[in-house]
Amino acid sequence: MDNHGDTDKRVIDESLIIAVEQDILQRNNEEAGRNRRYFEEKNIFCLNLMSSPGSGKTTLLEETIRRLKGRAPVGVIEGDQQTSNDADRIAALDVPVYQVNTGQGCHLEADMINSALSEIKPEDGTILFIENVGNLVCPAMYDLGEKQRVVIISVTEGDDKPLKYPYMFQESDICVINKIDLVPYLSTKMEVLKENVLKVNRNLRIFEVSAAQGTGMDEWCRWLLESRT
Amino acid sequence: MDNHGDTDKRVIDESLIIAVEQDILQRNNEEAGRNRRYFEEKNIFCLNLMSSPGSGKTTLLEETIRRLKGRAPVGVIEGDQQTSNDADRIAALDVPVYQVNTGQGCHLEADMINSALSEIKPEDGTILFIENVGNLVCPAMYDLGEKQRVVIISVTEGDDKPLKYPYMFQESDICVINKIDLVPYLSTKMEVLKENVLKVNRNLRIFEVSAAQGTGMDEWCRWLLESRT
Repeated sequence: MDNHGDTDKRVIDESLIIAVEQDILQRNNEEAGRNRRYFEEKNIFCLNLMSSPGSGKTTLLEETIRRLKGRAPVGVIEGDQQTSNDADRIAALDVPVYQVNTGQGCHLEADMINSALSEIKPEDGTILFIENVGNLVCPAMYDLGEKQRVVIISVTEGDDKPLKYPYMFQESDICVINKIDLVPYLSTKMEVLKENVLKVNRNLRIFEVSAAQGTGMDEWCRWLLESRT
Repeated sequence: MDNHGDTDKRVIDESLIIAVEQDILQRNNEEAGRNRRYFEEKNIFCLNLMSSPGSGKTTLLEETIRRLKGRAPVGVIEGDQQTSNDADRIAALDVPVYQVNTGQGCHLEADMINSALSEIKPEDGTILFIENVGNLVCPAMYDLGEKQRVVIISVTEGDDKPLKYPYMFQESDICVINKIDLVPYLSTKMEVLKENVLKVNRNLRIFEVSAAQGTGMDEWCRWLLESRT
């Protein structure tokens, strides 16, 4: 294939690209710091839920909210490229929810959370879930000010994903393995999946659930309530 | 939440960010044009396979290659953040393959394909598959010079994904719906999924397959062989 003599132009542009990227991340970190202080002042326990599309984040949230009802105030910020489908599902459970549509954007940023907070005005002591855009790559780079980062992986995605997409797992505190009821129909090996999760980040706390069937949900909800205080 | 008096700085930076993004995309398009001319000269039928992680791209490729063996030359370029797992699986089938690791990168770009081509040197008339990084968002923006863009979706991801991540479906020519053998165990409705695919892009040609079970693979391979010429 051809070489093309624009090397000098490239070098200049690459450094500019890096400078712009650093600036975006730095500004995001400043906004995230602001969110974090706000959460601390109001004793809000904020979790950033990240995963591929279709891992079952919204179903996990629905089943979590059903179990937390009456035991703790809950709020949700939903991120999607398009539609308010997820927010509508959460709103049906009668908890404060706000939908962010990112358009072509591939992740949530801290200033979007800042705007969403002024809409839902979570009460003190709320467990606040942020459901990020479905993407196992880009959201890992953007701090939203959350207390806990939760990566969700469905067993249907196969047992090798932590090794192939390690950054998301390295940057997370909690790993929820979802849809475990489907394991009998898949080539995914549960032990291999857990081994690979811990190979990438041995500090990850793992929850094994089937949100749709209710399996493992009590343990997950107990942890949420205990971690809140 | 706070306002913070750096509006002027922001305005300047936003325009710089847009300029840098446009420059990246423009340079990518130039490289993609180079790849496209190369494919045309050598009569190479190139397909860009895009999807969420775990939709079954590599299994689809393995089963496709098994069926195309002896009927057409095949080559594969694999994209992942980390590991050469996928390339190893393809290499075991004894076809030319090259693994691109993007590190923190969330998509393949045309210049990576350019470099990969000089490694695998596909023969004239090859069906060349590019397996993009698992990501239903970002790869849609980057032309690689391919003839056909293929979005793969697993039924396990739910029937609403085309509506929530429309750009990938809008930018594709073909939609492969995979893992259809799992439908009986899911709440996903096949008719709703197909309806949503076509709602976003009514020109998408749909193939329904279970790569793992072999269902629908003959029709998909027949289309590949016919489209090649």
